[in-house]
Amino acid sequence: MSIHTSLCDLFGIEHPVLLAPMAGVSGGALAAAVSRAGGLGLIGGGYGDADWLAREFDAAGDARVGVGFITWSLARQPHLLDLVLDRAPAALMLSFGDFQPFLAKIGDGQTKLIVQVQTLDQARKALDAGVDAIVAQGTEAGGHGGTRATLPFVPAVVDIAKETPVIAAGGIADGRGLAAALALGASGVLCGTAFFASDESLASGNAKRAAVDGSGDDTERSSVFDMARGLDWPADWNIRTMSNSFTDRWSGDIGGLRQNLAGEQARFEAARAADDIDIAPVIVGEAADLIRAIDPAQDTLHRMIAQAENHLRRISRLVEPNSKGQRR
Amino acid sequence: MSIHTSLCDLFGIEHPVLLAPMAGVSGGALAAAVSRAGGLGLIGGGYGDADWLAREFDAAGDARVGVGFITWSLARQPHLLDLVLDRAPAALMLSFGDFQPFLAKIGDGQTKLIVQVQTLDQARKALDAGVDAIVAQGTEAGGHGGTRATLPFVPAVVDIAKETPVIAAGGIADGRGLAAALALGASGVLCGTAFFASDESLASGNAKRAAVDGSGDDTERSSVFDMARGLDWPADWNIRTMSNSFTDRWSGDIGGLRQNLAGEQARFEAARAADDIDIAPVIVGEAADLIRAIDPAQDTLHRMIAQAENHLRRISRLVEPNSKGQRR
Repeated sequence: MSIHTSLCDLFGIEHPVLLAPMAGVSGGALAAAVSRAGGLGLIGGGYGDADWLAREFDAAGDARVGVGFITWSLARQPHLLDLVLDRAPAALMLSFGDFQPFLAKIGDGQTKLIVQVQTLDQARKALDAGVDAIVAQGTEAGGHGGTRATLPFVPAVVDIAKETPVIAAGGIADGRGLAAALALGASGVLCGTAFFASDESLASGNAKRAAVDGSGDDTERSSVFDMARGLDWPADWNIRTMSNSFTDRWSGDIGGLRQNLAGEQARFEAARAADDIDIAPVIVGEAADLIRAIDPAQDTLHRMIAQAENHLRRISRLVEPNSKGQRR
Repeated sequence: MSIHTSLCDLFGIEHPVLLAPMAGVSGGALAAAVSRAGGLGLIGGGYGDADWLAREFDAAGDARVGVGFITWSLARQPHLLDLVLDRAPAALMLSFGDFQPFLAKIGDGQTKLIVQVQTLDQARKALDAGVDAIVAQGTEAGGHGGTRATLPFVPAVVDIAKETPVIAAGGIADGRGLAAALALGASGVLCGTAFFASDESLASGNAKRAAVDGSGDDTERSSVFDMARGLDWPADWNIRTMSNSFTDRWSGDIGGLRQNLAGEQARFEAARAADDIDIAPVIVGEAADLIRAIDPAQDTLHRMIAQAENHLRRISRLVEPNSKGQRR
């Protein structure tokens, strides 16, 4: 069995499932595993490290993968785009900032342009620019994001997208989420948390175990980890992580963190080096409830497809052609 | 055509769609309209006004309706529960607080008990108490709510609910949202924003027009309107409304509002009396993008069912039985 949508045709893939380009987590091995399983893996371009990018593209081997960038960060190091375009990625995904300056470079090549948006206003700009696909990302997503929620946001984007495929992101980690996204009019899904604890993920061992054991009840959006990392993210976006002692201490007292920044940054860096996730962030979304094991990415993806098929069949049987109460 | 789920059997209704008991909006006429159209209307018990409740139950006439209460508020006026139980409502919905003290009164009568939750921890307590149905409400909902988002929250509740029907709430205002909720494993939906601008709604004319014209991009959660109304809501919940000059002024400066409370409350009350929605709240959720007209509630509900049926049929056709790429 298989689920076929316009997204499969656009990217030449079997399953309408993309790996989110999680910075520091979605390396070449994970992207390749998702692509080889029939989806499309996106390497996380993150904050820009040419050596890391070259290594991870090498690690993907002959798998057909894409890459995602944080747009405002890429603007400071535009040469990284040339570096990855030389690899002829299947797709380039731009998130969080003005993608317009990069359009000309992408041109009409093999690389499809995906733009991720968090508001209808951003969606309109991306559609006006003629992007190949648009990711409508809800606030329940792990990592950086905005305030709109996936379930009402996706159909609102679909209503203005016309023929452009809309990819749902945020909160989707199993076949029910995929089936729901298709019901909303999306052509596929982009998943981060679902693959965060994969065997092939670059997340640390403690972070993977915390993700599997964690609940969406215990995640929150804040700016404390961006401050601790010295990243000057625009105010439109903050980062969803598991709550831990660092968020407990500072997310309600950003001013206090700013006053104690040097000491807290040192404490934070030491914790990162020691894989101490009571201080370092576990960057997953509300879908943490739905991931239960550290598995090969292929297993996760194929389980998602099989479950989506089952649910699509189940709910199509809820429609009763001969209801006695027919009113229209 | 019709969509039949276990929720239809539980409540003896044709369509698995409930009207949210919106305080001051879901009166007897709106609840009756939703019930007569085949769903189940819930009168909004709000902050407790015996005369208002009696009048609105009268306004529902012979329609079979239910009622919803704000639990922490009901605890201060428990006699209101006797008043509504005398009306033998089809369902009693309790939200926002400890429902345990009211269980004995509801007993084994005709009235089904629905408890609305915003976290998995609350869901576990409700399920342990043996409620008849549970509403899993996402943060995208209009009015009071928590922080979890509908799309990942509903399947997590379904996973612990076993045989208890789960009703999805938050962000659902058309047939795509209903179809998505069913895909997530919910047995039905509870909708507020979808019916806010109905002909039969008690919302003001300006509020209905603002809801129809508004976008989910322009809603926000805050506590400013609760402070302006003198309502001491527990910190676990705040209220989603359209943004307006009052939220623009105060939602980032709660301390300032507290210092200027008397004057701002007077300004607020005058605005409410004048239906000035640049100061008074328009209490709708992110699904505002999906409501486009002031219609009879029956039209909205029947359009939702027809669209859900179409989408369920469409997505069931996406499953390809003979995919060449079959891998499992």
